[in-house]
Amino acid sequence: MSALSDLADLLGPRLSTGASVRDQHGRNESHFPPALPDAVAFPESTEEVAAIVRACAADGTPVTVFGTGTSLEGQHLPVAGGISLDMSRMNRVLAVHGGDMDAVVQPGLTRTGLNDALRDSGLFFPVDPGADASLGGMAATRASGTTTVRYGTMRDNVMALEAVMADGSVIRTGSRARKSASGYDLTHLLVGSEGTLGIITELTLRLHPLPEAVAAATCRFPSVAEAVACVIEVMPAAIPMARIELVDEMMVRGFNLHAGAEMPEMPHLFLEFHGAPGAVADQAALFREIAEDHGVSGWQDATTTEARSALWRMRHNAHHATGALEPGKRTLATDVCVPISALAEAVADAQAGARDLGLTSAIVGHVGDGNFHCGVRLNPEDADEMERVAEFSRRLAETALRLGGTVTGEHGIGLGKRKYMRAEHGNALDWMRRLKAAYDPKGILNPGKLLPDAE
Amino acid sequence: MSALSDLADLLGPRLSTGASVRDQHGRNESHFPPALPDAVAFPESTEEVAAIVRACAADGTPVTVFGTGTSLEGQHLPVAGGISLDMSRMNRVLAVHGGDMDAVVQPGLTRTGLNDALRDSGLFFPVDPGADASLGGMAATRASGTTTVRYGTMRDNVMALEAVMADGSVIRTGSRARKSASGYDLTHLLVGSEGTLGIITELTLRLHPLPEAVAAATCRFPSVAEAVACVIEVMPAAIPMARIELVDEMMVRGFNLHAGAEMPEMPHLFLEFHGAPGAVADQAALFREIAEDHGVSGWQDATTTEARSALWRMRHNAHHATGALEPGKRTLATDVCVPISALAEAVADAQAGARDLGLTSAIVGHVGDGNFHCGVRLNPEDADEMERVAEFSRRLAETALRLGGTVTGEHGIGLGKRKYMRAEHGNALDWMRRLKAAYDPKGILNPGKLLPDAE
Repeated sequence: MSALSDLADLLGPRLSTGASVRDQHGRNESHFPPALPDAVAFPESTEEVAAIVRACAADGTPVTVFGTGTSLEGQHLPVAGGISLDMSRMNRVLAVHGGDMDAVVQPGLTRTGLNDALRDSGLFFPVDPGADASLGGMAATRASGTTTVRYGTMRDNVMALEAVMADGSVIRTGSRARKSASGYDLTHLLVGSEGTLGIITELTLRLHPLPEAVAAATCRFPSVAEAVACVIEVMPAAIPMARIELVDEMMVRGFNLHAGAEMPEMPHLFLEFHGAPGAVADQAALFREIAEDHGVSGWQDATTTEARSALWRMRHNAHHATGALEPGKRTLATDVCVPISALAEAVADAQAGARDLGLTSAIVGHVGDGNFHCGVRLNPEDADEMERVAEFSRRLAETALRLGGTVTGEHGIGLGKRKYMRAEHGNALDWMRRLKAAYDPKGILNPGKLLPDAE
Repeated sequence: MSALSDLADLLGPRLSTGASVRDQHGRNESHFPPALPDAVAFPESTEEVAAIVRACAADGTPVTVFGTGTSLEGQHLPVAGGISLDMSRMNRVLAVHGGDMDAVVQPGLTRTGLNDALRDSGLFFPVDPGADASLGGMAATRASGTTTVRYGTMRDNVMALEAVMADGSVIRTGSRARKSASGYDLTHLLVGSEGTLGIITELTLRLHPLPEAVAAATCRFPSVAEAVACVIEVMPAAIPMARIELVDEMMVRGFNLHAGAEMPEMPHLFLEFHGAPGAVADQAALFREIAEDHGVSGWQDATTTEARSALWRMRHNAHHATGALEPGKRTLATDVCVPISALAEAVADAQAGARDLGLTSAIVGHVGDGNFHCGVRLNPEDADEMERVAEFSRRLAETALRLGGTVTGEHGIGLGKRKYMRAEHGNALDWMRRLKAAYDPKGILNPGKLLPDAE
């Protein structure tokens, strides 16, 4: 590749072909086999990203962006080789506009990095996928998480972007105005495109006022169906929930093993309320009243900051806690999202699927959005188990589509879910392909992701 | 056009070439000259829309969608002739999913039609641009309005679409799941595309719980700057405002003339609060406390439903009230949107611009979003006045862009603002053109709109 020598000239020591750096950029936290880049580039500016892409475009070298490597569908894996574009040196906060409640940041900044910078501003950035992911990666994968029920996904919180397109040209989309009816929404075309249409080099993000008061609680239900029925009654009751997380029996077992939680192995809801102090108490009381009709028990308030932190730390460690269920295996981390009315059926079907197939699967869910995750333990060396896991995934995806949902609420398509794109999108997939062909005719941007191979 | 005879066979009396029907579909409420279609088609199903588009694609006949004809930048005007596709017969509510808080509707249904159908459901559809526009038209123009500060724009409230593309193929985008990370966001590519990329034939819309209590109020300020400074202080205070509307001195004069309002000719804010009964009272009290620091006076609560309706009816009649300022003329209705911190400067500049140019301009603004409207009176026969109006528009757009905003917050680009697309979007415009070329290579979908002619 002539691109490599061009880039060595351009970046000097910030282009690495060393084995350990390449290895580090070719690994993943989920079940995909490693895929190594030919070289890793560490750009420090938009101009450098543009120059890198121009060099790669010249000889068709693939470019795959690496944020923190925490994506769960292999989005950052350079399966066709080429350049891994590591954004960690582009991690600055460029501006915080307190009066306008927005911030302009570089893509390598992580979400906690931004929130650290916002300390004492009275504002925060709410999207929280668990991992301390880069904000560019979160935008590229249309990430969401525990607070989405109240504050939205990355789609709702990205106002504007700067991006390098496949020919190396730099564009700006959107503005700092809170809305616009001007032209095609290229911002939201790039959000969720997994680096296949353009490379995000700057983001303008919406910030939110820190709530005056925060209260959290946990409680348990006799069944997943009752927990979900409670949530379905809560949502139209206009309680502005900040978090409602479902934890199934198996996940509770994982928390008990991993974090010594000593919770009864029953379905739980983890709750958080944001608002004025009086309003927060009212919200919790109204929730509890509705929950009484669904057999709630074991209500525990987490009123102190410490108790709340412990609660959400445990929840965020779900991936590791799943690992405690069958030590020594790996985890398939998958998610689907369905209309809330179908959530109990979808979760029950996932639990039955794991039982039928003899698999260990733990479920956590952003139940206010109808989104839930299954962490399935697997041994990559065990061909029979791998086939049963594949069958589990297929059944999960098919059930989600049958119930009017989507094969992924927040992990994205990446490598693992391309096979469901036709089933989910029908001939809209052809219009996605048309878009890709128009924007990246040489196919250099994150090849092998999002779109299935030609059918 | 061979398409016309094909369509006559397909639609029978539902294809009209009568002068009065064509005239009715070629007029507009703003200042654009009439533009007549060759024929008006009244489809009754997605299949008919697809057949019409296929016939038009065969011989390059333009297709321009007509909802209620209330768009303000001429989006529905068939400036290149061809077919006006009147969606008024596709106006059914197809499903209301109360538990999931969504509704599936046809594009010709109006927003009040949907809210009538939701009566007694405890839910409502909040987007309110003033006019009783069709929901398809509102999606196509990315409409918003008075409640956007709380409930978002059409972008935030369209979950899924069915659309007929330029070759007559029918696609479905999105799903009833409340979020998805699956594939390119074609839904939000179509929202705001003004019928130039595809024709919306079905929408799935997000509904919201009716607030338990609603309170409204009006108050006045010594200057626009003080009114805006009050809003800037209110927004991060986490008061969940449902409406905050700025009305400038000239607009007050219009309301007094048109509706006999007898308000002092000072800048006003019109406010609405939604929530639990106690919360609503707390919100209003907190607002008033902040407003005291900005010289607020004349606080008037509108507590009864009747008083509230009268208040918002007056606000919604701003277009007609503007007409009372210089009877016998027409109105240029334009809007821009800026970061809230720049709003006072932008409004002051618009007021100064009208004074400098000897024009009558009334301002109303969705001030919580940084969005405001100018209604400028004009006599189309007066070439000098038309030139001054054009100068006013140019200055307004340039100021909005200089302040980091957009040339339109909610009216869209249509015919009137194509000339600012390059200034606002820079070379992102080239990527919009690339998209249009990929999706509508023959250019039959609403030609002459949104994208400027080749430069």
